[in-house]
Order: sequence, then structure tokens, then C-alpha cells
Amino acid sequence: MGSWPKHLPALALPDLAAGWIDLLDQSQLPESVEYVRLTTAEGAADAIQSLKVRGAPAIGIVGGLGLALGVGKALVEGGLSSRGRAEEEMERLRALLYASRPTGRNLGWALSRVAEAFRIGLRDSTEEAVGQARAMSLEVWKEEEARCDGIGEVGLEVIPEVKASILTHCNAGALATGGIGTATAPLYVAAREGVRLRVFAGETRPVMQGARLTAWELDRAGLDVTVVADSMAGSLMARGDVDLVIVGADAVTTDGSVVNKIGTYPLAVLAMHHGLPFYVALPTTTIDPSRGSSEIPIESRAEEELRQFGERCTVPPGANVWNPAFDLTPPELVTAFLTETELVRPPFDPRLSALAPQPPVG
Amino acid sequence: MGSWPKHLPALALPDLAAGWIDLLDQSQLPESVEYVRLTTAEGAADAIQSLKVRGAPAIGIVGGLGLALGVGKALVEGGLSSRGRAEEEMERLRALLYASRPTGRNLGWALSRVAEAFRIGLRDSTEEAVGQARAMSLEVWKEEEARCDGIGEVGLEVIPEVKASILTHCNAGALATGGIGTATAPLYVAAREGVRLRVFAGETRPVMQGARLTAWELDRAGLDVTVVADSMAGSLMARGDVDLVIVGADAVTTDGSVVNKIGTYPLAVLAMHHGLPFYVALPTTTIDPSRGSSEIPIESRAEEELRQFGERCTVPPGANVWNPAFDLTPPELVTAFLTETELVRPPFDPRLSALAPQPPVG
Repeated sequence: MGSWPKHLPALALPDLAAGWIDLLDQSQLPESVEYVRLTTAEGAADAIQSLKVRGAPAIGIVGGLGLALGVGKALVEGGLSSRGRAEEEMERLRALLYASRPTGRNLGWALSRVAEAFRIGLRDSTEEAVGQARAMSLEVWKEEEARCDGIGEVGLEVIPEVKASILTHCNAGALATGGIGTATAPLYVAAREGVRLRVFAGETRPVMQGARLTAWELDRAGLDVTVVADSMAGSLMARGDVDLVIVGADAVTTDGSVVNKIGTYPLAVLAMHHGLPFYVALPTTTIDPSRGSSEIPIESRAEEELRQFGERCTVPPGANVWNPAFDLTPPELVTAFLTETELVRPPFDPRLSALAPQPPVG
Repeated sequence: MGSWPKHLPALALPDLAAGWIDLLDQSQLPESVEYVRLTTAEGAADAIQSLKVRGAPAIGIVGGLGLALGVGKALVEGGLSSRGRAEEEMERLRALLYASRPTGRNLGWALSRVAEAFRIGLRDSTEEAVGQARAMSLEVWKEEEARCDGIGEVGLEVIPEVKASILTHCNAGALATGGIGTATAPLYVAAREGVRLRVFAGETRPVMQGARLTAWELDRAGLDVTVVADSMAGSLMARGDVDLVIVGADAVTTDGSVVNKIGTYPLAVLAMHHGLPFYVALPTTTIDPSRGSSEIPIESRAEEELRQFGERCTVPPGANVWNPAFDLTPPELVTAFLTETELVRPPFDPRLSALAPQPPVG
């Protein structure tokens, strides 16, 4: 998969007919670039659970590929000997993969689509069922790529034509999506169009996705990228070193509230204080029409992420820590949303509702 | 030294007549609490240079004690055999100590005062010169403690009477000052007065002084302290979990511009956005009447502070990093300055100028 830029790191190199996916192990970045070979659904589930792959769309893609791998292996090993057994085995593998990251919308959606394709094929034969599952898992990936490309084209219109200095946060990039990313898509497209770009990546405490992943993939794609601590963004803006901010989103409500990686909200406040535009890039599949912003729970992550770094202890045992995974940016701080089909400016409500996906089938 | 609270960690335990200081090695905190014994001026200079002690007032104190140690040792070893040689040896030690951290205002000031005391004593005898140097080095420390106590009393008036939730940044505490700190002084005094306090300490990337040092000293003094990543302060404020912000300062100009640890400025912007008061605690010795805010250079620190953490690489080699040590907070974001003698509200200019120290003598 993967079209432009050619030198973007591949999320994975799959050969489903041969029974494997080589998955880029993101947990080892940037210290080493290692692909792990997955040959089973269990292996894919484990890769998701152990954070070898992260980012909701990328998890969906790997989940779908994993289900195709699983049914393919069952076919070879005689585990799909009847329609009933085939259906049963597929559902077992689907449940196993879903359990690897149950909060992700994309994972459930991707698994549903591959499962549905399997069932349609099964009306014909088990071979056809597996073939349809494989085709659909690649189709899910291709659609994610197309959405990223769309965001890149839409986002291009907010980037100055000659040169631009752009701040981003966390990793909403190729590594998270399988395509050219969401927040990074306008950057890759602008670079292709010849815009002289300078990108600042906030390191994104505590897990450092901005430093470890965004800086890595942008650098590898030949972009000029500078890592700053999250607390340095304000100084960059005050110096006039930032033209605009683009971030991704984990969930967006129809009123335009943004749930994204912790540290997004202060960037939005700082951007407003400095009169800078603040954009949120997202596929429309990220819009959640079922909940208001106050209904989205903000997950607290393990204390250890703040208490220690590698072998070093950074917080004394007697002190508490608070480690929320996300924060909430209210609509009034968002200049516009960059989706795969259009740029959505305020008031956000009618357009975001119209763009929101229908509930998945199956 | 040290009065209240009794359980505050001692910056150092000196016995100058016996020829030693036991200095708390802050570079080992919070993993281990180790005191290193200093017996020479060279040892004190090395402790300053290797960051065993940091914080401008604390460095000044240790520099003064180091000069007293050095001349004491020279006396015992016969190195002060004439007035001329005594003067020469003292100047040599003073220059050596000054070179350990030449940017610190307090270090130069403390060394000048101990040197002047030595010279006055020398009119009488070399024994008297050493005695005066010792006495003055302890006097410098006592004065720093008194300034901290003053800031605590002045700061008490901005803290709610029954309970308060306070955010601070970096370490402007006992460990940095030898007393009860500057930004921490109102906290310690309020706690003594029975205010129920909840303190949030920003971890302070990249060197983690907030997590490692502020959380350690507040916890040790029995205060309720919670460490957050710097990027989480905005969420705390949005949740209503912060009543006020108190930070220290590395330098303050007479118009009220604040140079302090990187990450201070975004907290000031966030405080204003949330309608929260933002206080800067400082001894008047920190006011710099000689320069405007644009004339204070913002030191860039080593890239390695951002590029790696312990043994782990956090930034890919191809990416740039930007690592400024300080940021600049403009006067319009400061609610008031808490000094050892008074609370200074806007307009800051005439009062800060009046409170600024005269240039040091000698």
C-alpha cells in the first residue's frame, strides 16, 4: 500500500495469501526500526495490546488484517470444515481481536466489515469467504488512506503558499493511520506542492509520541522538524515562530468539542491568545454523533508513565500523580475542522452532524 | 540553620570551624537522599558546577560557605602567612568559586560580601579575617532565610483562608533558597496556619525539577502534592481544580516582566484565560534594574536534555530540538509580585524600581 510520499514508513507490509503481515513495531521507535511478522489473529491482537501499533485508524487496519490472517490460517488447517464451524471460528477470532482494544471505534468498525465480507463469501464457499475477508481488510486500509489523502487536499488551503511554520502535537501521522496521517496530511501534501515548511512537534508527555513518532516519520519523509517540550509552544508563538497549529482528534462531538491527547487544550488557548489559527484534522469517522462532550469519559492512564522514565524514578513515592490521557478543547477555540471532504468552519453543528457516520452494521 | 517547618530538608549542614559542609546532593533526588561532605572551596565550586545544588539563592549560600571553607583551610595550612598572601589567596578562591556559575547574581553578591568581611577582619589578623568570613557566610544564609520568611508572610494574604488548590512550576523551594523557598514560602506558611492545601507541581520538562524536587520537598514537609505533566495544567484549570498559581523568578525587570523556567509563560496565559490569579514570588534581590526585558538573554541548554532520558533516546537523530531554559512572561499577565516586604500590584513600575537592590560593592 502507500502512494505518496514513497519514503513514508510503511505501517505494515502484508502478504495475506502467503499468511503474514510484517508490522512496524512502533514501541521501538525511534531507537530501532523493526518489523515483527504476524501470522495469526492472536499475534495481531497481541501487537495491538502491546502498543506495537497505536492510533485508532491504524489499529482498525491491523485488526482487519488480523482477522483475515486468522480465517486464512483456519482454512489451511481445516478449521472451517462446515459453514457453521466457519462462522463460529470467525466470530471467535473477531471477539479476540476486538478485546485487544475495545474502546477504539475504528477497530470495531473494521472488524464488522471484514466479518460481513466473510459471511457474504461463505454463501459460496469457505475459500471464497476467506478471499472476501482478505479483500475487505485491504479495502478498509485503502479507504483510510483515501481519507488521509482527502484531509491533505482540504488542509492544503489553510497553509500559506510559500512558506509556513506549523506546530503539531502527539502523533496523528502515517504511523497512526496507515495513510499520510490526519494532522500530518496537509504537511505532506504542502511539502509535495513545494511549500517551504518548518514543523514543530511537541514531545507529548508522558509517552512522547510527538518526539518519538511524529519527528521520526516527518524526518524520514524529508521534512524539517524540530522537537520542543510541550511547555515551549507558548514561547514559540510569542516569538512569531508559529503560523498555525494542526492537531488530530480521538473524538469530536457534533458541536465541535475535541477530545484529543492531553496537551491539546493548552495549545488551543495559546493559539487564541496569540491570534493564531487552530485546526483539527480528522476523518469524518471520528465524529461521534451519539454523545455530548461531557459524556465522553477521559481515561486516566497508569501512574508509572509519570512516575518513572525508563529506569529512572522522576516522582517521589509520597507524592500523588494525575495522568489523564486526553483533554477537551471547546468549539470556540477551534478555527476549523479539516475533514476528508471539506473544511468546516463555525458554526460547526449542522455540518458535523451531517458528516457524522451512521452506526456500523453487522 | 532552618526554623520552620522543622521537617524541611536542610540545604546543607555546615560546621565551618571544623572545616566542613554536608551538602544535600539534589542531583540524586528523589531516588536517594545523600549529603556530600565539602571541605574545600574547590569542592564547593565543583558541587555548584555539577548541579548538586541549584537555585540562585542556594548557589549564593553555598558559594559564600565555600569561600569561608577555603580561607579557613588556607589558614590552617599556613597559606595566609602575610596580609598580601592572604588577600591574594582569598581572591584566587573567590574567582574560582565565581567561575562555577558566573551568570548567577546571587553568587557574585554573596562572594563579595564574604570577601569584604574577610578584608575587614584582615586589618586585625588572619584569624580574625577567617572568622569574619565564616560569620558573613552564615549571615548571607540567614538573610536569605529571612527573605523567604517575609515572602511567606506577604504571600499568605493571597491564599484563601480555609482551603486552597495551588499550582506551581519548577522548584522555587527550600532546595533552591536555603529557607522556606520563594514560590513555596506562602504554601509552607499557609499550611502552618492550618489552611487545607492541595498543591499541583508541574513536572517541568526537561530536567523535572517540579517532579523531582518540589514534589519531594513538599511531601517531606507533609503537604498534599500532586505531580502533573506540564501539558496537564490547562485541564486542571478547566476542571476548577486550581485557585491560584504561584511561581518563582530568575529575573524580574522593573516593568514587571518575568524571566523564569520555561513553561511559566503558558501557565500565565492559561491562568488569564481561566480568570485565575497568577503570582510571582521573589526576593527583591531578584529585581534587575539594569536591563529591560528584551535585554535579558534566554539561554539555550544542551540538546541532550530533550534528546534522551537516562539511557533512552526520545528524539530521532535527524530531527532538530529547541531547548530554551527560560521564557518571558509580560507584566500584563501577572496579578501581583510577592516580595519579602510587600505585595506589589500593577502598575508595577515605580514600586519595583524602588525595591530593586543597589549594585553590589567590592
